[in-house]
Amino acid sequence: MRSTSDTAVEPPEMRWNGWGDPDGGIGLPRAVRALLPLLLGRVPRPGPAPQLDAVEVAPSCLSGADLAALAGVVGDSEVRTDAESRVRRSGGRSTPDLLHRRASRQQVPDAVVRPATHAEVAAVLRVAHERVIAVVPFGGGTSVVGGVDPDAGRHHAVIALDLARLSGLVRLDAVSGEAVLLAGTRGPEAERLLAEHGLELGHYPQSFRYASIGGFAAARSSGQNSAGYGRFDTMVTGLRMATPTGDLDLGRAPGSAAGPDLTRLLLGSEGAFGVITEVRVRVHPTPRDRIVESWTFPDFTTGANALREVVQRGGTPTVIRLSDEAETGVSLAQVGRIGKVLAKGASAVTVFEGEDAEHRRARTAELIATAGGTSTGQGAAEEWARTRFDGPYLRDALLDAGVFCETLETATTWANLHRLRAAVTSALKDGFTDAGARSFVMCHISHLYPTGASLYFTVLAGVRGDQLRTWDAVKRRVGDAIMASGGTITHHHAIGRDHAAWLPQEIGETGIRILRAVKRELDPQGVMNPNVLIPEEPLRE
Amino acid sequence: MRSTSDTAVEPPEMRWNGWGDPDGGIGLPRAVRALLPLLLGRVPRPGPAPQLDAVEVAPSCLSGADLAALAGVVGDSEVRTDAESRVRRSGGRSTPDLLHRRASRQQVPDAVVRPATHAEVAAVLRVAHERVIAVVPFGGGTSVVGGVDPDAGRHHAVIALDLARLSGLVRLDAVSGEAVLLAGTRGPEAERLLAEHGLELGHYPQSFRYASIGGFAAARSSGQNSAGYGRFDTMVTGLRMATPTGDLDLGRAPGSAAGPDLTRLLLGSEGAFGVITEVRVRVHPTPRDRIVESWTFPDFTTGANALREVVQRGGTPTVIRLSDEAETGVSLAQVGRIGKVLAKGASAVTVFEGEDAEHRRARTAELIATAGGTSTGQGAAEEWARTRFDGPYLRDALLDAGVFCETLETATTWANLHRLRAAVTSALKDGFTDAGARSFVMCHISHLYPTGASLYFTVLAGVRGDQLRTWDAVKRRVGDAIMASGGTITHHHAIGRDHAAWLPQEIGETGIRILRAVKRELDPQGVMNPNVLIPEEPLRE
Repeated sequence: MRSTSDTAVEPPEMRWNGWGDPDGGIGLPRAVRALLPLLLGRVPRPGPAPQLDAVEVAPSCLSGADLAALAGVVGDSEVRTDAESRVRRSGGRSTPDLLHRRASRQQVPDAVVRPATHAEVAAVLRVAHERVIAVVPFGGGTSVVGGVDPDAGRHHAVIALDLARLSGLVRLDAVSGEAVLLAGTRGPEAERLLAEHGLELGHYPQSFRYASIGGFAAARSSGQNSAGYGRFDTMVTGLRMATPTGDLDLGRAPGSAAGPDLTRLLLGSEGAFGVITEVRVRVHPTPRDRIVESWTFPDFTTGANALREVVQRGGTPTVIRLSDEAETGVSLAQVGRIGKVLAKGASAVTVFEGEDAEHRRARTAELIATAGGTSTGQGAAEEWARTRFDGPYLRDALLDAGVFCETLETATTWANLHRLRAAVTSALKDGFTDAGARSFVMCHISHLYPTGASLYFTVLAGVRGDQLRTWDAVKRRVGDAIMASGGTITHHHAIGRDHAAWLPQEIGETGIRILRAVKRELDPQGVMNPNVLIPEEPLRE
Repeated sequence: MRSTSDTAVEPPEMRWNGWGDPDGGIGLPRAVRALLPLLLGRVPRPGPAPQLDAVEVAPSCLSGADLAALAGVVGDSEVRTDAESRVRRSGGRSTPDLLHRRASRQQVPDAVVRPATHAEVAAVLRVAHERVIAVVPFGGGTSVVGGVDPDAGRHHAVIALDLARLSGLVRLDAVSGEAVLLAGTRGPEAERLLAEHGLELGHYPQSFRYASIGGFAAARSSGQNSAGYGRFDTMVTGLRMATPTGDLDLGRAPGSAAGPDLTRLLLGSEGAFGVITEVRVRVHPTPRDRIVESWTFPDFTTGANALREVVQRGGTPTVIRLSDEAETGVSLAQVGRIGKVLAKGASAVTVFEGEDAEHRRARTAELIATAGGTSTGQGAAEEWARTRFDGPYLRDALLDAGVFCETLETATTWANLHRLRAAVTSALKDGFTDAGARSFVMCHISHLYPTGASLYFTVLAGVRGDQLRTWDAVKRRVGDAIMASGGTITHHHAIGRDHAAWLPQEIGETGIRILRAVKRELDPQGVMNPNVLIPEEPLRE
């Protein structure tokens, strides 16, 4: 069987310089609008952003022979050099990306190449290897770490390898609960194809509506239902990858001791070794019911201890997340209850879906209550579920209002959680203070492990000067603070180019040597996503 | 904190040419003894095995300078060249290993070197790298795949790097549920050290009493409680490794997207890249209660479907295993109920420990009953629990009686399980038939995943000719059948030297190139466990 998305409507293109559906933006809730000057002082609104058709780009650096070789693989119509195609595949969706896109001149790839099959991907990579053209694999374009920047490295040109045409369900084994999806399949399309068989993948990161299955794998994504279904890594049972020098097709069995699990070396490889073309994933029956509940705790520390009890003692919710006092206050403001703004206490949400949900809920509720939490009914949890993918729209509205807004995340052990949170919060606040800006830092826990948890930070700042330069300095300070305080430089946003400076501290110099050795073997010309994960190697004599 | 095992009594040395405690062997149950001639025909008993002090070994090939350099690291007394030390570190415990040990002349390492710390391991590897001496890391010596053979490869000498002195608990974080154990710590010692803090690791492979924590990691072990606590891979949250050219210290956070998870590249590396010296593992409170139950199914297929329901619908037992009709019959014989020998039906065992055990038991019982299983009380399950580590003793008794006995294992998806089982069974039976031997094949499932399960085979055969040569041909046939039928060449016994021929089919030629590239980078002289995972590379000019 193979049901592709050939007949499906391709999702509308995202706003080229913002998030999501061009018609789908949301304004700032009035209460938030009222709150911002109190928190951050008054900031100037930026000038109007350029229109797409007014953007200037440099001419393509690909030669006629390069273009002919690429067209020889995918056909003339799938090698695109027009400005709009190139602008639309010119990077991801971090706040710096969006700020850069307010300029009238854009750095763009020299062409967008759109293969339709694994074989075409492999053939494009061979052309790139032979002609020494850099290749940036491009899925949903939702990277927030510079993972899809049009970086030619030391080469003469760079193509964006757009995987949108690799969309569809290749195979389904309903008995074993395994599905093979093409890498370019977007989140909603994957769920639509599976739902036709009564099945669900259950991976819902905030980027879900646009991000691709291959991107989830390449960047080691983790979704909002990770408590129930695990991070994306753990859903993957097999991978197919094309590299400039050969293919990989891994994952012969659900469990194996046949040497190191190389699937885990491709997960997180971020296009630096090759292009993931197919992902085999574990799926489960579409849950029928959903039980949501909201909770309040006297403070974040009490809440974090409750979450630890839940995960260590097996409460097994599908979703569980805890907002600190600041995020709790702003969330209340968002739904208009300005009177409760910055109310004391930390709020949590639990969701239960699937088998034995009522028992799991009861047990989790008991653990939470024993640990000091109080149920506040369903309202706030339903509001969270309704708006769970809308965060990036809010950021657009904040940026339009001149307010700097960015997120970052890390993870550590339970014992180290509060030390790390304090260090990151200080680095953010002090960093902005040193730049003369007021800031507001919120934090939540949304991914639990028996041994620890993630910490997700959102920072708003009233920057009067150059937002990009200010953030660059703050971000460096925060990354250093994470490393010094025992966290990981990223829990689920990946390394890309933005975090590469910290990877040597994360995995050590010997770890970097391993990554370089693998890259040299698979991609000896260094054409794959230059400067992602590891800086380009100097040219050998 | 650091509690080492320095003051603990080292476990008694295993029988040099058999399993376990020299005084701990068990005889064949009378019913089995009666059954064997019926199943396999009469076979000659082998001659008496040689005594350890009668074994001949070649002189050590290490030069005086080699020995001095090694002694310079660990001290004179920890570089051992006497025959007994060398014979005792001369390989693992596969049936071929034990048959080889019936010869009067043994292949042995040129010395046994016993470092006490990570730093000493690293220094020994540097000496080995500089002097080009092969190194076989030696933990519990329980490999059944040739993983610790004294193989010098193309080098002039080989040392067994005995890790017994690296025993102890380095750090414990009870809040996060993480412990760091030295790699040479044996299973029972690890559990003893954790139990002092009310904690348990919960990894109980059949080799538990002798195998080491580092060996579990290096070989990607899976234990009998894997349904509850996961295979060993999933317990590991961090690793420290010394290689000939640098150290690795991985696992900064419980979850991360900081590039590929290199911890997973070291798990399963089987000493081919370096030596694991410390393992950070997830631990949990020692369970107070244990609920055991036995089940019967009309046949293996019904039982397998029941197990699939349990794992896919979240019954979450701590142990669940299903024996096919043949294994069920022999198990009954072992406990003396000869009348029921080869009774129809397949039997299963469930064990529940830890949090919410009574509910998990009730839910699992309901799923099993609905799928066609019938509870048979606790007796058989208790018998299984009592004798769960005794299988290897039985094999010794069979070999002493002239009966060939070996095990092998694989795994696949639920949809492919019966095809794979039939293919392996045929390959075993036909292989022995072609050698003129009668055989008896038993199978069980003992490790479940949502998408599939393991298959563990035990074969008994009445071989009249050369057992080693006969098995070599049968094993090749079985390995080829596993590959042709979509299984993995090993679910939890590792690759070692015995399975290396199939690894190119398992991970593809590009996968082999990755392993070679990593090995070349970390171990450019190729001194680490030569010919494990991948055959030695030809010498470069």
